[in-house]
Amino acid sequence: MVNNQILAVGSVALDSVKTPFGKADETLGGSAAFFAASARFFSKVSIVAVVGEDFPKKYLDLIQRLGIKTQGLEIRKGRTFRWKGFYDYDLNFAKTLKTELNVFQAFKPRLSEDERRSRFVFLANIDPEIQTSVLKQVKDPAFTACDTMNYWIENKKAGLLRLLKNVDIFLCNDSEARELSGEYNLAKTAQWVFSRGPKLFVIKKGEHGVICFSKRSVFAAPAFCLEKVFDPTGAGDSFAGGFIGSLSRARRLNENEVRKAVIYGSVLASYNVESFSLNRVAALKKNEIEKRYAEFRRLTRF
Amino acid sequence: MVNNQILAVGSVALDSVKTPFGKADETLGGSAAFFAASARFFSKVSIVAVVGEDFPKKYLDLIQRLGIKTQGLEIRKGRTFRWKGFYDYDLNFAKTLKTELNVFQAFKPRLSEDERRSRFVFLANIDPEIQTSVLKQVKDPAFTACDTMNYWIENKKAGLLRLLKNVDIFLCNDSEARELSGEYNLAKTAQWVFSRGPKLFVIKKGEHGVICFSKRSVFAAPAFCLEKVFDPTGAGDSFAGGFIGSLSRARRLNENEVRKAVIYGSVLASYNVESFSLNRVAALKKNEIEKRYAEFRRLTRF
Repeated sequence: MVNNQILAVGSVALDSVKTPFGKADETLGGSAAFFAASARFFSKVSIVAVVGEDFPKKYLDLIQRLGIKTQGLEIRKGRTFRWKGFYDYDLNFAKTLKTELNVFQAFKPRLSEDERRSRFVFLANIDPEIQTSVLKQVKDPAFTACDTMNYWIENKKAGLLRLLKNVDIFLCNDSEARELSGEYNLAKTAQWVFSRGPKLFVIKKGEHGVICFSKRSVFAAPAFCLEKVFDPTGAGDSFAGGFIGSLSRARRLNENEVRKAVIYGSVLASYNVESFSLNRVAALKKNEIEKRYAEFRRLTRF
Repeated sequence: MVNNQILAVGSVALDSVKTPFGKADETLGGSAAFFAASARFFSKVSIVAVVGEDFPKKYLDLIQRLGIKTQGLEIRKGRTFRWKGFYDYDLNFAKTLKTELNVFQAFKPRLSEDERRSRFVFLANIDPEIQTSVLKQVKDPAFTACDTMNYWIENKKAGLLRLLKNVDIFLCNDSEARELSGEYNLAKTAQWVFSRGPKLFVIKKGEHGVICFSKRSVFAAPAFCLEKVFDPTGAGDSFAGGFIGSLSRARRLNENEVRKAVIYGSVLASYNVESFSLNRVAALKKNEIEKRYAEFRRLTRF
């Protein structure tokens, strides 16, 4: 029997971030955490990740309080994955000061029977070999999606291309799309991606919004226009959470549902950047999501 | 009696441009030329500019063949304004190799009686003192708009601020907006601009589209998604041509008309970048404009 949940593999991390508006040390972060905090509004989410014994109990409690399933969150001897970075006024570009993989270096997820029966799969940014190994363990997903980053494009390109053959939806940002395809023009980049496997290609452009390509159509959505962007960390994963979450509820990848999903993703990302870590999204109410969805209509209709 | 025409002051220039896709020497360019070639689809356009005796007759013929009024195009002893630049694959940023003001250095436009009665005024990117002097000569415009560039922000800021007090619509690109206001966040930049005079603020973001702020509303439009961007030179002025052109036909600055105008501006800009100089826009048909306007709906609706 299939399980109507989203399985998300990725990182759960401790982030130290400085922005022009403040700083935060060792707050809860990681692609799976940001993703799940947003996707939970739409479907049950089960995360697959690893943390060290030093992972603060308050963060584990928070994740569980959000209704996220943590059976697949392994606690292992050693230190939790850490990322340290900062942003200048150009909040579209994170500058990394330090990345410590720690317990993630030897991460080999083995899914439980419950996890294998997940209907929807999101492979957040992580080593493509791990993404593939998780994908293979899932029995009969309705659709699968993955993200990546420049590090894997540069160091594990063959593995990433093998993965792309087997996913339905590929998400990445515009510079990653260009680096991977070797093509500057994004419409041509989309053709390149379609020739590699995926049937839906979502390019995240941060403050410039999102372009979503299907084989027959293009949809462009601006980012929400905020007076205060506090910390952009996790915006891309929050987007993916709202996007995949919305699609998991729709269950079909038709054009209308995909466009709605892009807007829900943009709504969640816009809330995420209003505070450090996933604080704002953790406190978010469903009616606030619908309110901003309506505001996106006002922002874009003509 | 008021004259239902758009008066456009700006440059008419000879551009030498290199892009990753080819090069063109001494082609017709300049802010007033690009603007007028687009705005002519909506209203009569009268340009005020200066060229040198070396200005090729074929370009003068072309401008006139497009139906643009050239009584205010002064031909003066000396060389025409020249710009030489190139683009790398990141077509959003022009690199200037050389700017020769030539006859523009001593340009002091004196409007004819016909020009003074223009109902709509566009002050394209040019010295703000010249923009102001033109503005003062127009008798009773329905609305006025101006553009600028970083050079004037850095060297003639006081003059630019004086000008802003007296225009209804201010257009510039995102980096200019940030430089002028000293504010990174674009929503805050808009508040800053409104406190200086204009009631409509249009931020051009090249391949990332346009954000248009009025005091009570925000509208965001993506750029058209093209497989081939050949030469971005003049895209901003083509946008302004479609935008101001559309508003001149609407005659009112209400929210719906402003949004339509942003899309017409984006349509004209998208055609302009398909070839060197204003070749594509010069050959454009009205039904092609409406066709792409409809495509913008498909690109953005959800």
